[in-house]
Amino acid sequence: MTEHYLDNSATTRVSQGAADKAIELMRECYANPSSLHSMGFSASKELEHARDTIAKALGADSSEIYFTSGGTEANNLAILGCAHAHKRRGNRIVTTATEHSSVYETMLHLRDEGFEVIFVSPDITGGVSAQDVISQIDEKTILVSVMYINNETGATNPITEIAAAIKRRGLSTLLHTDAVQAFGKVDFKVARLGAHLVSISGHKIHAPKGVGALYVKKGVRILPHTFGGKQEKKLRPGTESLPLIGAFGVAAEELDIQQSRDNAQTLRSYLLDKLSLIPQVKVNSPSQGSPFILNFSVDGIRSETMLHHLAAQGVYVSSGSACSKGAKSHVLSAMNLPDNLADSAIRVSFSKHSTHEDCDALLEGIRSGIENLAKR
Amino acid sequence: MTEHYLDNSATTRVSQGAADKAIELMRECYANPSSLHSMGFSASKELEHARDTIAKALGADSSEIYFTSGGTEANNLAILGCAHAHKRRGNRIVTTATEHSSVYETMLHLRDEGFEVIFVSPDITGGVSAQDVISQIDEKTILVSVMYINNETGATNPITEIAAAIKRRGLSTLLHTDAVQAFGKVDFKVARLGAHLVSISGHKIHAPKGVGALYVKKGVRILPHTFGGKQEKKLRPGTESLPLIGAFGVAAEELDIQQSRDNAQTLRSYLLDKLSLIPQVKVNSPSQGSPFILNFSVDGIRSETMLHHLAAQGVYVSSGSACSKGAKSHVLSAMNLPDNLADSAIRVSFSKHSTHEDCDALLEGIRSGIENLAKR
Repeated sequence: MTEHYLDNSATTRVSQGAADKAIELMRECYANPSSLHSMGFSASKELEHARDTIAKALGADSSEIYFTSGGTEANNLAILGCAHAHKRRGNRIVTTATEHSSVYETMLHLRDEGFEVIFVSPDITGGVSAQDVISQIDEKTILVSVMYINNETGATNPITEIAAAIKRRGLSTLLHTDAVQAFGKVDFKVARLGAHLVSISGHKIHAPKGVGALYVKKGVRILPHTFGGKQEKKLRPGTESLPLIGAFGVAAEELDIQQSRDNAQTLRSYLLDKLSLIPQVKVNSPSQGSPFILNFSVDGIRSETMLHHLAAQGVYVSSGSACSKGAKSHVLSAMNLPDNLADSAIRVSFSKHSTHEDCDALLEGIRSGIENLAKR
Repeated sequence: MTEHYLDNSATTRVSQGAADKAIELMRECYANPSSLHSMGFSASKELEHARDTIAKALGADSSEIYFTSGGTEANNLAILGCAHAHKRRGNRIVTTATEHSSVYETMLHLRDEGFEVIFVSPDITGGVSAQDVISQIDEKTILVSVMYINNETGATNPITEIAAAIKRRGLSTLLHTDAVQAFGKVDFKVARLGAHLVSISGHKIHAPKGVGALYVKKGVRILPHTFGGKQEKKLRPGTESLPLIGAFGVAAEELDIQQSRDNAQTLRSYLLDKLSLIPQVKVNSPSQGSPFILNFSVDGIRSETMLHHLAAQGVYVSSGSACSKGAKSHVLSAMNLPDNLADSAIRVSFSKHSTHEDCDALLEGIRSGIENLAKR
C-alpha cells in the first residue's frame, strides 16, 4: 500500500542528509564536545557549525542560539526562565488560549506559582488579534508569549505588531514566540519579527526528534531551568546531543522555504477546491493561514473514526494535535467551534514531499468515509 | 595515526547496532508516537519495546522507566521533582560533595530555594562512607542523593547500605542515585540496590548522546519539572526522541557486563602494574573502585599539558570530568587532594573496546611526557 503521510505538523520524515550527518557524528566524531583533547575539539567544532547554521536561518547571532531537547524544552526554558528572572519587576504574563500544551501547561504552572496569567481568546479560526493581546499588556507585564503559527489550524498571529506595540510604549516586557510551526515554513528573521525569545524544533523540518533550540536576544536575561555543567553557557547544561544537533544543522541548510511554501500552497488550494464540493465538509482553518496546515470537519463522522478509516487506506492525518493523545483539543474549545465540528475535526499537514497523489488519496478516503461511516 | 580512545567515562562511540536502529527510526518508522494512526502506533510500539529493554536491564517494571534527554535531565527531574513534591514533609536533603555537576549544581539551587542541603565529605579516594551519610539523615530528611560510582575516581558508594538504614529506621526519606557511571558496568538491579530513584544515561554505554532515563519506583511520587503534553505520563512531556530511545534500547540489549568488566579489570591491573614503576605517578583512584576508571597524577606536569601531549600521540584521556571544561574539579578539591596532585590529575576510562595496545600507547605517552615536559 502506498503511504500518504499528511501529518507533517506532528512530525516529519528525517532527510537522508540529516540522517547521514547523525550517523557520522555517532560513529566518527563521537567525542564529548567538552573534552579538552583534539577529538573533543573536533566535536565542538561540529557543534558550533550547527549553531552557526541555525543562527543564520533565524537571522541571529550564533551566541544567541541555545540547543535544547526540543520545542517543549525550549518553551519551558523561555517561559519559566523569563518569569523567574523578572518576577521582581512584575507579576503579569499575557498569552493566548490556543498555545501548544508546552506553553499552555507551563502557564498553568506559573499561575499556580502565583503569577497572574491572562489567556487571550482567539477568533473562530484559532488566531488572536494584535489589539486583543496589546490591550492586556501593562507596566507589570514581564512576559508576552504568543505562538507564531497555530499547530492545529495554521492561523498566523501578529507577532511583529505585538513587538512594535511593546517597543512603542517603552515597556521592558519580553516577547516570546513558539515558532515551532513557523521555522522553515515562513521566511522570518528574528530582528524583523521583534521577539526576544523564539522557540524552534528540529523534527518539524526533517531533522530527528529530540532536538530544538531557543533564540535568546543578546542582552536578554533569563534563568536556567536545569542545572549542571557549563554547556550552552550554563543556560542548558548536559552533554550536547551532537548527532541530533548536527542533523538539525543539515536540515536547516537543506531548507528551501519558497519551494516548500509554493508546493504546500498549491496542494492546499487544490484540496480546498475539491473539499468545497463535499457538502459535509466545513473548513476550520483561516483562508490566510499557513499553507502547510488545513483543518476541516466532516460533519457526522468523529475525528478518530475518520482517522482510522483513512489510515486503513494508507492516508495519515491527525485529529487535532498529536500531543493531545485523543483528548479534546483545548484549542478547538477556545475557538468556540460547535461540538459537532470540534468532534469531527481533521488536520492535514504538508511537507515539501507532499504530492497531488497524497491529496487525491485523502479525498478518495474522505468520500468513501462519508459513504460508509456516516450512517452508523 | 592510530586512535587510542581512553575517555569512555566522558562518552563512548555509538555501536553499529544502536546507530542502525537510530537510522531505521529516523527514516522508516518516523511518525510521532502520540499520533493516533497506525504509523503512530508502530512508533509507539518501538518506544515501548525500548522501555521494556531498559526496564529489564535495571530489573524494573516498564511503568517505572521515564525517558529523558540524558543523565543531567534525569538527575534534575529526580532531585527537583522529589524536593518540590515533598517539601511539606521536611526541608533537609543529604548528598555528597563529590556528585556530578548535574546533581551538585541542582543542590546549590535547592539551597537557594531554602532547603537545608548537607554535603557529606568524601575520603581521599572520592568515596563516602555509609555511616557518614546515614548519620546525617533525620526525620526531616526528604531526600538522600548519593552517586553510585564517582565519575572522576571510580570510587563506589555504599548505596545498598544507605537504603537499608533508611528502611530499618522506618523513614519515608527517598533515596536517589546517579548511576550514570554504573549502568552497564555494574550488574545491579534496582530492587536489590534499594534506591527509589535511579538516573542512567545512554551515551556512556554506546548509545548516542541526548538520551537517558529515570527509574521511579512504583508508588513514589515526584513532580514534573517541565510542562506540556502527555508523554511519559506527563512526568517528562515533549515528543519522544524515538531514534535515540530506540538506539538506547539496542545498546542496552548489547550489554555484556561481565565481559566488559573482565576486560576493564585486566587493563586496569596491567596499567597499575606499569604505572607503579614510574616514580612520578601517584594513583588517586581507590584500589577497589570501578575497573572502568583510573585516576592518577603525574607529579610536576599539569593535567592539560599532559592531555595535549597524549592527544598529539593519538591517546585521548581526560583531566577530571569532561563537564568541567578545564575548571578545577570540585570533586578533587573535596577529596583534599594536595594541589600538586589535583593539578596534574589524569583520568583514564575504558570501554569493552579498549585494548592492551591502548594502554601501551598511553604508557609510552606518559613516559615521553615526563621526559619532555617536566623540565619546563
